[in-house]
Amino acid sequence: MRKHLRDCRIAVVGLGLMGASLCIDLIRSSACREVRGIARRTDTVLEAFFSGAVDLATNDLDTGVLGADILVLATPVRTILSLLQDVGAKLWPGTLVIDMGSTKSDICAAMALLPDGLQPIGGHPMTGKEVAGFKAAEAGLYVDAPWVLTPLERTSAEAMELACELVKVVGAKPLVLSPDRHDHLVASISHLPYLLANALVQTVAERGEFDPLVWRLAAGGFRDTSRVAASDTRMFLDILMTNRSAILDQLDVFDHRLREIRSTLEKMDEEKLSQLLEAAQKQRIAWNSRHST
Amino acid sequence: MRKHLRDCRIAVVGLGLMGASLCIDLIRSSACREVRGIARRTDTVLEAFFSGAVDLATNDLDTGVLGADILVLATPVRTILSLLQDVGAKLWPGTLVIDMGSTKSDICAAMALLPDGLQPIGGHPMTGKEVAGFKAAEAGLYVDAPWVLTPLERTSAEAMELACELVKVVGAKPLVLSPDRHDHLVASISHLPYLLANALVQTVAERGEFDPLVWRLAAGGFRDTSRVAASDTRMFLDILMTNRSAILDQLDVFDHRLREIRSTLEKMDEEKLSQLLEAAQKQRIAWNSRHST
Repeated sequence: MRKHLRDCRIAVVGLGLMGASLCIDLIRSSACREVRGIARRTDTVLEAFFSGAVDLATNDLDTGVLGADILVLATPVRTILSLLQDVGAKLWPGTLVIDMGSTKSDICAAMALLPDGLQPIGGHPMTGKEVAGFKAAEAGLYVDAPWVLTPLERTSAEAMELACELVKVVGAKPLVLSPDRHDHLVASISHLPYLLANALVQTVAERGEFDPLVWRLAAGGFRDTSRVAASDTRMFLDILMTNRSAILDQLDVFDHRLREIRSTLEKMDEEKLSQLLEAAQKQRIAWNSRHST
Repeated sequence: MRKHLRDCRIAVVGLGLMGASLCIDLIRSSACREVRGIARRTDTVLEAFFSGAVDLATNDLDTGVLGADILVLATPVRTILSLLQDVGAKLWPGTLVIDMGSTKSDICAAMALLPDGLQPIGGHPMTGKEVAGFKAAEAGLYVDAPWVLTPLERTSAEAMELACELVKVVGAKPLVLSPDRHDHLVASISHLPYLLANALVQTVAERGEFDPLVWRLAAGGFRDTSRVAASDTRMFLDILMTNRSAILDQLDVFDHRLREIRSTLEKMDEEKLSQLLEAAQKQRIAWNSRHST
């Protein structure tokens, strides 16, 4: 008989935006038997406990995971990779090991090395904010978000059912993908935009060295296009280093497109330029009308 | 004795987002003697009149500008340029001619050719939305926005005072700049972001041809970074064609920055990459805390 979420002790490692928001939703919905939060910094541990975001908080991994039915790794990607090397021996057989990391190939490869009997599944809820940390956590963060799940060959159907139950209880929509497909998709819609925003801020800053007024005139266009450049750099450094080839590939596609725009403008080929602008406008508006929130 | 705004008949040519929002504010504040709207399309004329956005609406330029004390050109840039060729002869001596176009060098050059006796001033309120047209107009659009003014050598102090009064009455902040300086600044903070958003949408669309799921997974990062790609293409085509060299220059700076990020990632120079991410993050956060709305 399979385990149900309501009977599970769940241990969440990492109480930043993603992990803490998950804990808050699980506590509020009384979906689990127990919600434990494990954080590195003592002030986060205290804050999580006294704000009622978790039933139990600790900065000791061994204590936190003891007897857990579900382990959720919600740290930056390379911390997840190093946790996966150590945590296996501390878990009971049958434990569901799921993560919330932003890239999946390296994590799923590391999950494949977990001791037999554990049930690993990669996971990535497709939502976020440019602000990080426990204080940024909020109830309902995952409502209507696609939550990618990347099971391994060894993952049992029961473990998948439990993972789907977890995803659905916070209002998200499970979407099963291969790690490689996930990583290529997010390179395009998340990692590329981040690097563009970064290079845009640098470009404006260079103009700002000659003319500081640029910062005062910057309005909505700059605000939106550059917003993700304010994201947590630690998280993104891990993303870049673990999804390098897919990102380099997307940078090349982007570069090709921007060069085409540049040469069309340089040649004053107005008809072609107009076509490029209209095609992208049409696609952006169509996407927005399908996915407006 | 100089003219005051409350004694002026103001004629606004173009009742899109910018022109109609201006009319609405002027009508609501009873700041002028009369607010006239001139639009090409008859349905816009009727909509503007019956919604109370203007005192008088017409699609006939001659009728609309007759006896006006202030003429505001609020169409796309190249329509402003062609209006400036014809409208001079229709205006009374002393009329203030101001525009709301997104680039200023070509417009101010055209303004210099207006008949003597007219008072031309280039103008550009630094605000906007990615939605265009009369229906997108709203009261209060200009509150707290910098409104760039680019007077010509011939412009009288009285005309500048009247223009500043107009800007301030809708809550905006007049900022006097040379046309060239304005155009270089907006190339960086507005026109470059637009082209990046465009190329990003094209890049994601190319991925979407292989894997349509990309559109479903696209979340906040893509949404914000690509938002301006949905902007009015007619308006932006005019901007690109009239601010070409400044934009090509900014594209080159951006290209240089993005290449540096790419090569740092390719070489896995993690320390350098981390520095680039943190520098841009710091600047974006600092800008936001100074200019949050």
